[in-house]
Amino acid sequence: MGDSNRRSALNRRSFLVGGAALTGGAAVAGGAAGWGVGGRTATARTPDRDAIANSRAVGAATEPFHGDRQSGITTAPQAHAAYVAFDLRDGLRRTDLIGVLRAWTQDAARLTQGRGGLADLQHELAEGPSRLTVTIGFGPELLGKIGLGDRTPEWLQPLPDFPQIDRLEDRWSGGDLLLQVCADDPLTVAHSARILSSGVRDAVLQRWAQRGFRRAVGTDPSGQTQRNLFGQIDGTANPSPADADYDQLLYSDGADRRWMRGGTSLVLRRIRMTMDTWEEIERSSRELTIGRKLDSGAPLTGTTEHDPADFEAIDQTGLTVIPTESHIARARPRVRAETILRRPYNYDDIPDPGQISNSGLLFASYQADPVRQFVPIQQRLAEQDMLNTWTVPIGSAVFAIPPGCHEGGYVGESALEG
Amino acid sequence: MGDSNRRSALNRRSFLVGGAALTGGAAVAGGAAGWGVGGRTATARTPDRDAIANSRAVGAATEPFHGDRQSGITTAPQAHAAYVAFDLRDGLRRTDLIGVLRAWTQDAARLTQGRGGLADLQHELAEGPSRLTVTIGFGPELLGKIGLGDRTPEWLQPLPDFPQIDRLEDRWSGGDLLLQVCADDPLTVAHSARILSSGVRDAVLQRWAQRGFRRAVGTDPSGQTQRNLFGQIDGTANPSPADADYDQLLYSDGADRRWMRGGTSLVLRRIRMTMDTWEEIERSSRELTIGRKLDSGAPLTGTTEHDPADFEAIDQTGLTVIPTESHIARARPRVRAETILRRPYNYDDIPDPGQISNSGLLFASYQADPVRQFVPIQQRLAEQDMLNTWTVPIGSAVFAIPPGCHEGGYVGESALEG
Repeated sequence: MGDSNRRSALNRRSFLVGGAALTGGAAVAGGAAGWGVGGRTATARTPDRDAIANSRAVGAATEPFHGDRQSGITTAPQAHAAYVAFDLRDGLRRTDLIGVLRAWTQDAARLTQGRGGLADLQHELAEGPSRLTVTIGFGPELLGKIGLGDRTPEWLQPLPDFPQIDRLEDRWSGGDLLLQVCADDPLTVAHSARILSSGVRDAVLQRWAQRGFRRAVGTDPSGQTQRNLFGQIDGTANPSPADADYDQLLYSDGADRRWMRGGTSLVLRRIRMTMDTWEEIERSSRELTIGRKLDSGAPLTGTTEHDPADFEAIDQTGLTVIPTESHIARARPRVRAETILRRPYNYDDIPDPGQISNSGLLFASYQADPVRQFVPIQQRLAEQDMLNTWTVPIGSAVFAIPPGCHEGGYVGESALEG
Repeated sequence: MGDSNRRSALNRRSFLVGGAALTGGAAVAGGAAGWGVGGRTATARTPDRDAIANSRAVGAATEPFHGDRQSGITTAPQAHAAYVAFDLRDGLRRTDLIGVLRAWTQDAARLTQGRGGLADLQHELAEGPSRLTVTIGFGPELLGKIGLGDRTPEWLQPLPDFPQIDRLEDRWSGGDLLLQVCADDPLTVAHSARILSSGVRDAVLQRWAQRGFRRAVGTDPSGQTQRNLFGQIDGTANPSPADADYDQLLYSDGADRRWMRGGTSLVLRRIRMTMDTWEEIERSSRELTIGRKLDSGAPLTGTTEHDPADFEAIDQTGLTVIPTESHIARARPRVRAETILRRPYNYDDIPDPGQISNSGLLFASYQADPVRQFVPIQQRLAEQDMLNTWTVPIGSAVFAIPPGCHEGGYVGESALEG
């Protein structure tokens, strides 16, 4: 075993028996090699940055609004997102809620296609929709508040408590209604969220708003697998549309509630990442924590990102190569049903006084049934996950995402009509 | 005079004599025409969105770090910005400050070229620098704190009070040191700001951080003139590099302090925009307020954005076409010296409880001498500017931006050596 292998084994032993290997003053950045090394430089056939800047190619792209399913779920994640939650004002009825949903549907249908909202006097800000999607969700108490509690799916409830890890704050949790607004342009997200939120304030009270980002278009051809602010590739093990059970994992077949057929659920968790202490551990400890290599995102037993992880492989010290307490070892599905579609965003907000950062992850996952699919994973992670040392869930919400609608209809009508 | 002219004249009279024309429930959005109308659709020669997404063209682009002048001043504005201010900790000396500036210089030289910072164990996040620039500034009290107060330029002081408009908050104002971090990718900005801020925490205390954005690359070929969240084209009347006095307006010739030669100043004002009331006035009132057309950004006397404004032109009602109280009439330079280079960013942060939005503008301007060039403009605007009804300055800071440095040197050395 060479020197570097021996060192890494030693680091590993010491990390697992009680302490992360701390970064020393003499730490040398692996980054000396720099960008573009490793055969990933742009080829001559890719567009040139100035040609992109002089174009509307990113801004002009659109995603459909109408359809059997809402957009923004399997849509390739856009660079920017706003999640905005609302509570229905006291005393409102079914017809008032229908008014809100019709207004959102009409404006979303326009905004996503680059047209100003109906009462939007600033239509220039809607030009260049940048693949805008607007996705509408129903919180656990919404239907009960308008006398339709029996239409609430069984699984539509707040997540169980995870007292080992949760430090939830009301200001990031819950809500009767959700707007998920995503686009490749931050001004489009800001304007669209504003227009949609301000038009309905007589009926709903804004409860919270959260904003997130991924890498800009044209920075990362690996596309959908983003890096979070810990530098981890995040979202590798998503189901693929090529999987035979993809639709079944993602969308309701109507067996929960008939109106949900074609709908799904969103779990949104705001996870604070403690950059200060994460930066104190070195790369080998970071890789053991997650179970993947930092550079490629490959499992510690593989060489490329999508290599299957071998959780049985043993290293020269007799331990599994991927620690059993690592994030991926704990998170991996024990049964196929524990499969979710993650669509996370980073956040980096104004720090609190005395702090350098206010950073983390807006963990967002879609699944047909969060109780069956998501909760068992979260339960295991709450019980044990090396990553928990550096992450704190501070917000949590669950929404039903109704099926999509067609021209003339509105999102949510299958729940509210009849 | 046709109906629409007459109506607009009436609106105008009523607006100027005491009330904005309110938007009614029946307001019809001008946006029905929609995006792409007006001959501005992309041509066949522009790159296609998917080709951009599959490339690193935006991420691979770099701006120089070393040079006679710092980057990030005349650099075509990137899509994302972080401004981070710091105070020197008590009791620190010149050598400590030099340590901070050397660390920032070394890391900035690396990060801007796509390499991880020196103590950065997560170099993957530095890949794809996306035209990153890091610009370093000195606040009014910095040099005095290390016994070099006589080197502080006369103009390096907080702006005078503007009691008519200012509602300044400490948490967005002042500071001994500034980092301006700009890139076309939000993850690059977040990571770079983090690395630069966390590496110097023993010497400096982070005072505030502000984050802003403009439109994403590939959404707006008009490029440098951005739209703010009121929908206004913002930054039209900037000096041009073709102007004979461009360098003189922007950069110190060393007559203020010899070490400043090749440096400039930054005025950063955080301006809250009250979206709730702005949305209550209709387009004609919005245009009279600013003095420009909303769609093209043309002055009310012109047809395209860069047409010179005719402040003498009279309309059929006997008033100047551009109201004398409008923003551009009040802001326009009375003498050529009142010319500044604006480089603004929008902000859209987490709303306070009960609010829908927390939006505004990070007004940033560069000029050789803020007292001569900026203050007279701000004084006029504080005295009278129709836009003041919808804007509130809540933060203010002034920084000297030292000249650039060459390999082996560090930003600020002309002030600190000798």
